[in-house]
Parts: sequence; structure tokens; C-alpha cells
Amino acid sequence: MPNERSYETACKRSDEIRADLPLHPEKYTMLTGDRPTGRLHLGHYFGTLKGRVELQDMGVKTSVLIADYQVITDRDTTEHIQDNVYNMVMDYLACGIDPEKTMIYTHSAVPAANQLMLPFLSLVSEAELQRNPTVKAEMEASGHELTGLLLTYPVHQACDILFCKGNVVPVGRDQLPHIELTRLIARKFNNRYGKVFPEVDALLSDTPLLPGLDGRKMSKSYGNAISISMTAEETAKRIKKSQTDSERMITFDPEGRPGVSGLLSTAAICTGRAPEEIAEEIGMGGSGQLKKYVTEAVNSYFEPIRERRHAFEQDLDYVKDVLHEGNRRANEIAEATLAEVREAMGMVY
Amino acid sequence: MPNERSYETACKRSDEIRADLPLHPEKYTMLTGDRPTGRLHLGHYFGTLKGRVELQDMGVKTSVLIADYQVITDRDTTEHIQDNVYNMVMDYLACGIDPEKTMIYTHSAVPAANQLMLPFLSLVSEAELQRNPTVKAEMEASGHELTGLLLTYPVHQACDILFCKGNVVPVGRDQLPHIELTRLIARKFNNRYGKVFPEVDALLSDTPLLPGLDGRKMSKSYGNAISISMTAEETAKRIKKSQTDSERMITFDPEGRPGVSGLLSTAAICTGRAPEEIAEEIGMGGSGQLKKYVTEAVNSYFEPIRERRHAFEQDLDYVKDVLHEGNRRANEIAEATLAEVREAMGMVY
Repeated sequence: MPNERSYETACKRSDEIRADLPLHPEKYTMLTGDRPTGRLHLGHYFGTLKGRVELQDMGVKTSVLIADYQVITDRDTTEHIQDNVYNMVMDYLACGIDPEKTMIYTHSAVPAANQLMLPFLSLVSEAELQRNPTVKAEMEASGHELTGLLLTYPVHQACDILFCKGNVVPVGRDQLPHIELTRLIARKFNNRYGKVFPEVDALLSDTPLLPGLDGRKMSKSYGNAISISMTAEETAKRIKKSQTDSERMITFDPEGRPGVSGLLSTAAICTGRAPEEIAEEIGMGGSGQLKKYVTEAVNSYFEPIRERRHAFEQDLDYVKDVLHEGNRRANEIAEATLAEVREAMGMVY
Repeated sequence: MPNERSYETACKRSDEIRADLPLHPEKYTMLTGDRPTGRLHLGHYFGTLKGRVELQDMGVKTSVLIADYQVITDRDTTEHIQDNVYNMVMDYLACGIDPEKTMIYTHSAVPAANQLMLPFLSLVSEAELQRNPTVKAEMEASGHELTGLLLTYPVHQACDILFCKGNVVPVGRDQLPHIELTRLIARKFNNRYGKVFPEVDALLSDTPLLPGLDGRKMSKSYGNAISISMTAEETAKRIKKSQTDSERMITFDPEGRPGVSGLLSTAAICTGRAPEEIAEEIGMGGSGQLKKYVTEAVNSYFEPIRERRHAFEQDLDYVKDVLHEGNRRANEIAEATLAEVREAMGMVY
């Protein structure tokens, strides 16, 4: 975690950018991405996908990376990866990411971007790699030994951001050390070889994290997440099964009543209402009525998205086309950047 | 340094391969390379270049890598790199490396080979990277902080060897840990995703290291090396300046008389005679006669090589063509291997 001062600086800068984005969208190139380890859920949707669509529609140059090589930072298998990648593209498209405006691509398809690992690794010391608190936290959370790829993935993330000259990256606070490392790499490269890369800033999220149905962190492994790809029936079933408590009166109390409050938060974000207001309305209706309300709220919000998703599921060729075109564009950009890098380093023969 | 047992195993395996090479050259793909940090000298020529040419002419599939990204493992600059690369190609061609038979290429030109860094880094633990004794020794020798690139360069070397499915790599004993790591990476990849990569063996040098003119390790920075690219006059001058001792009688005694013995070793390797025999012949002729003998030995051995080199110096376009063609072929091979890797990992979309 960066120290308080640098966090505050990052917040201030992020606020300035957020204010400037609608005024000067053409100044910004944004890069975000996801690990294709499963289906995207409501946490992803409200936490990042919705925001990406807003920036895209504002006219910001937007790139969305399916980080397939990041799957193996802490796993020994790439099982189901093809299926996960296709489904991720479907989720994106269904949620409003427009391939005419946004470049959707995969790590493994862009060699020229991955090649930046080599010069970038030379700009970072082993001590700087070891010092990254997020890498250590992720290693511990995964229960997997620290691989060379996990140790160096912040450098790979710098490649992702810098190959397309991204200058704004939406992240949570825990990802700030990575943005700092990207800034360091860009600065060192520019100083040593000549200016090629922009200054990168974090765009810190201003919406609080949506908890899972049980009030804990939303996670596929906890079974407390509703995927975008679920049907209305599956959604109803998952909500019905979710744990509440024995108190009939519905109140919003995330600390004391995590289950009830997780449901209220979910309904609130889908309806745009305050969770307290929904709680009051249901009152003595109990968890039965609450669950009915949440189910309706989720299903009606996601109905059009799921309809679109269903159409894409029937048209895998189109989904592949989107990815191929994104990969083609990413390669074009990566090759142009790599050519600049070679030129700056004098590696032109 | 690997323990004695694994060193002995490697030696035994190396001897077997050396015996089998002339019988079944078609079974072998060899990869070697050099860092383009300056001109190649007699140590390179007798230590590795000559052997490469022999293997090439035997019919072994031979690749020679100009490792331009390795220049920045422990340096903050790529100064003169273009000039160094062109001159390295000239040295190669002059020494008999035949671009019709041998692929000559640079790191920075082959993105698909460099991309292998990502999956390969996932197969190696941070502990395994830290444990490599050669990396630490190189870091200490360079006086530079340990960069991420130096820490991970044995993995990059695995990419070099495995992208072209090399199965035999001429190395010194100090490089055995890197070959071990390459073997580990290939084995882990094959076990995890399916067989793509061959088993790699070290081809340990059977010729002792040629010392510099002063008897110390031959090194550009000691001024005790004769470059292949030197003229006969420059060679004579360097030999004339070299330090001997006050004893008139010439004897071969590497411990007690490093200067005289360094000169004798140089003459011996160029004439194919024993250093003791040359010493006896010169006897009381003193260092003046010795230096004359060495100068003639070096200049007559290298005369045809230098003549060829001179011709290549006049034809930079040809030198570039050789490199471009090597890079083109390397990309073709790397892309085919990367496609196999993607297929094995299921990263085909």
C-alpha cells in the first residue's frame, strides 16, 4: 500500500482527471482488463464495466485487455481458458462495450507488446520487484508459491498500459503500487533513451465495492455472486438460497446484519435507491419479501443486457470476429510502439 | 555452480553428444550467441566461433544469436549497439559462419520468441531465480544493482534455446545452471500442457580457455586481447606493448611467468604447436624474438579471415541483408513455436 501522502496525491490527481474527462476526452487513452478465470458478475459490472462504457461513450480512447497470461501467475493450469475468453467478450458486448469504439484483445495475441517486458525489466531493480506489497498479498491469497510471473507481473502490466500509450487506468487503491511502477518505468525509459511514453495516472473508483449476497467480498468461490450470464431463474435461485438472519424487521446494518445488508446493497445499486429506503419500505415484510424485491431489481436491470448476451451466445462467429479485429488493432499499435522503442534504444539494424 | 555429481553427469552426456555429432548431425539443433558489447577477439574465436563453424559444416542446424537485450541486463545504456551488431555479423562471416547454413539474428527482432518469457516465467519460482549462482556472480562482477532483467535472464535464455527447439548448447561450466533451468522449464511445460519442447543438453568445451597476452583472463577492459578486426599492424603493436619479464630464457610457466606464457599460448593455438616446443625453439632469443614469433603466428592465421572481414566492411548492405534474412527466418520459427505453445495452453481463440 502506498503511504498516505502518495495516496492523497493520487486521489487529488484522479479527481482532477475525472472532472476533465467529459471536457477533454480526446486527451485520454484508457486501459483496463480482466483475468479470464470465470464469468463476470455484478461486482465487475458496477465496479468497472459500467464505468468503462461511460468513458467509451464520452469519447475516451478505450482498450480492454483479456489478460490470459495473468491466469497463470498463480495457477498451474489454463483449463477452460478458451471458453472463459469467449464468454468474457460476450459479457463485454452485452454490457455495452462497443467494439467499434473499444479495442478488445488478449495478451497472448500481441507479441510486440509482450516483448516490452525485456527492456522494461532492465529498468526495474530486483529490490523494487520484491517491495511491491500487492504482489505479496496476492501470492498469500492464492496459496501458491511466488512464481517468476507473479513477481514480474507489475512490469507486464506496465507493458499493457504503455504499449498503447495509456495515460489513465481505472484501479482500486491496492493497485496503486503497480501504477507507480509503470510511472517509474516510463520515466526511466524516457530519461535513458528519449521520450516515448506518457505519464500514467490512476483513475480511482468513486463507487464503494458492491458486497456479495452474504455481505462478504463478492467472489465466485464464496457462491455469493450473481453472474451477468445467469438467467433470471438462476438469479432467483441464488438469491433465495442466500443466508439472512432470524430477525423479521429489515434494516440496513452492514456490520451487524451482513446477509440482509448485502441483499439491500444489491437491490439499491440496481434501482438507484438508497438501501435504507428499501429497508424501510419492506420493514416487517421479512427476508422473503426482501429477496423477492432484490430478485426483481436484479432481473429487471439485467434483462436487456442478458437479452443481448443471449444473442451473442448464438453468434460465436461474431464474438470471434470482434476479438480478431481487436487483436489485429492491438498488434498494429504494439508494433508501432515497439518500433519507436527500438529506434530510441538504437536497436535498428 | 552445480554440484560435482551433476557436473559429472553433464560432462558424460556432453562427451556422448560430441562423439555422436559427426555421426548424426541431423539430430541436433544448436544455439549459441554473444552480447554485442564490443569486437570479438581471439578468445571468442578459439573458444567458440571455430567450434560453431565446425558444427555448422558438419550439418548441425546452427543458430547464432546476437543478444542485444542482454546488453542492458547490467548496463544503463545501449551506446554503439548498432555498430557493435554490424561488426559482430562481420566477425561471424569472416570467421566462416555461413548464412546459408546458419541463422544469424538479434533478440530485439523476434517478438514471438520474446513472448515465451510470459509462460516460461510462470513455470519458475522466485526462489529458483534467486538461487542461480551465475546470476549473482555476474551481478557482482558488473558492480551494477541486480535488475529484473538480470534476475530473469536465464529464463530469457530458455526462450532463446527453446523457441528454435535447440537441443544442444555449447557452454562453459559456469553456464550449466542456465541449461538446468532450461531443462526444468521444458519439462514443466511439457508435463503441464503437452509435449512441445525437446530435452536440452550442454556441450561442454573441451579446449582450455585462451588467456590474454598478459596471462590474465582475456578481456577488452584489460587491454590484453587481440580483436579479430584488428589490422596486422595493430596486432603487432599490441603484442609489442604486452608485459613480459626480465628473464631472457623463454620457458612455459603459466603460474610463474604469466606474460611470457600468455604469449606462448597465443602462438601455440595459432600454429597448432605445443607452447613448450615454441619456448624451447626460442630459448635465449628473449621476449623480443618471442613477440616477433607470436605476431607472425597471429597475423598469418588471421590473414585470410581479416581479408574476408575487410571485404564485408566495404559491403554493409550485404551484412544487413544477412541479418534481415536471419531475423526473418527466426521470426518464422518463433511464430510456429508460439502457435504450438498457444495450442498446447488452449489459448486459441
